[in-house]
Amino acid sequence: MNIETPILVEIFRDISFTKEESILIAPKFEKIQLKKGDTLLQANDVVYNQYYVSSGCLRTCFMDNSGKEHTLQFAIKDWWISDYTAFFTTTKAAMTIECIQEAIVYKISKKDVESLYAHIPKIETLFRKKMEKGYAALQNRILSSLSQSAKERYTSFISAYPNIEQSVKNYHIASYLGITTESLSRIRKELTHN
Amino acid sequence: MNIETPILVEIFRDISFTKEESILIAPKFEKIQLKKGDTLLQANDVVYNQYYVSSGCLRTCFMDNSGKEHTLQFAIKDWWISDYTAFFTTTKAAMTIECIQEAIVYKISKKDVESLYAHIPKIETLFRKKMEKGYAALQNRILSSLSQSAKERYTSFISAYPNIEQSVKNYHIASYLGITTESLSRIRKELTHN
Repeated sequence: MNIETPILVEIFRDISFTKEESILIAPKFEKIQLKKGDTLLQANDVVYNQYYVSSGCLRTCFMDNSGKEHTLQFAIKDWWISDYTAFFTTTKAAMTIECIQEAIVYKISKKDVESLYAHIPKIETLFRKKMEKGYAALQNRILSSLSQSAKERYTSFISAYPNIEQSVKNYHIASYLGITTESLSRIRKELTHN
Repeated sequence: MNIETPILVEIFRDISFTKEESILIAPKFEKIQLKKGDTLLQANDVVYNQYYVSSGCLRTCFMDNSGKEHTLQFAIKDWWISDYTAFFTTTKAAMTIECIQEAIVYKISKKDVESLYAHIPKIETLFRKKMEKGYAALQNRILSSLSQSAKERYTSFISAYPNIEQSVKNYHIASYLGITTESLSRIRKELTHN
């Protein structure tokens, strides 16, 4: 175990650690390999962990009372994923996290991440900044859902997640944008013809 | 200046400070009194500050290319408000913040809050936790915009902001929910008749 540990360099690319810090951090992460279709988190399970995505693609989805699925988030390399409402409060997940393209993720528990915050303050700073970026991104997504047409939202989605279309099904994208798959097909046709 | 300084107790209710810490913190906040209709932040201004709302009500609004207004956020007592995308990156605001009910807010700059994080780590912990709550709340709002009917979203809004209806205009609420004022009136009538 030393500061070259590749996964720590990948996860914490913005900061460097002493050997002692790396020895403290590394065992708190657990590597998980997922196949397409695997469920990483099931709705109604208590959420103890969040996950760093090293490769592949996952999505967080929510099934409403009528049985309709909604995609809250896609996560690709270098994203973190969990049911955050449930993770922050250690309560039951409202959402399911599904692997949609073979993935490697690194799990860390709330208890362990909080112990890292306490022992290595620069980790808390990093996560505080990540939360700020995430918060701003969600505000922008709400703004775009209020003010943009479905075609504009699809175009923003494609810029935010380049190359994702090979991994995901049409109904995943449609349920992320809050439109029907028929509307999505129409938008794609219009964009191809322009 | 001592730890009894009422505004510090109000803003940082979850933590207590030594006298030395209070002396460091208090001058970084500036009190601002706002009248209904005042603009706290103007779209296209560079955003250096965020604001703690001590009383009254403000809203963050965005005007799209067609001149239509959208309400991203309302802020009442104990909320923080800014154009966060612009605040975190010290760039130009996309949004305007307007006072919609006589308010007292406390301003703190990004530079000053970051200096507090560096000198008093428990403040960074508090803001990291506030960001987590805010992030989870925005995820839930996105989920509700995808999965709930306008009537359900209105009901959630009323629970989240009790008593707000006296302060805000119908088009503020409608533009927050992403519906027309006519739809809002229809929903209210339906709820009254139930």
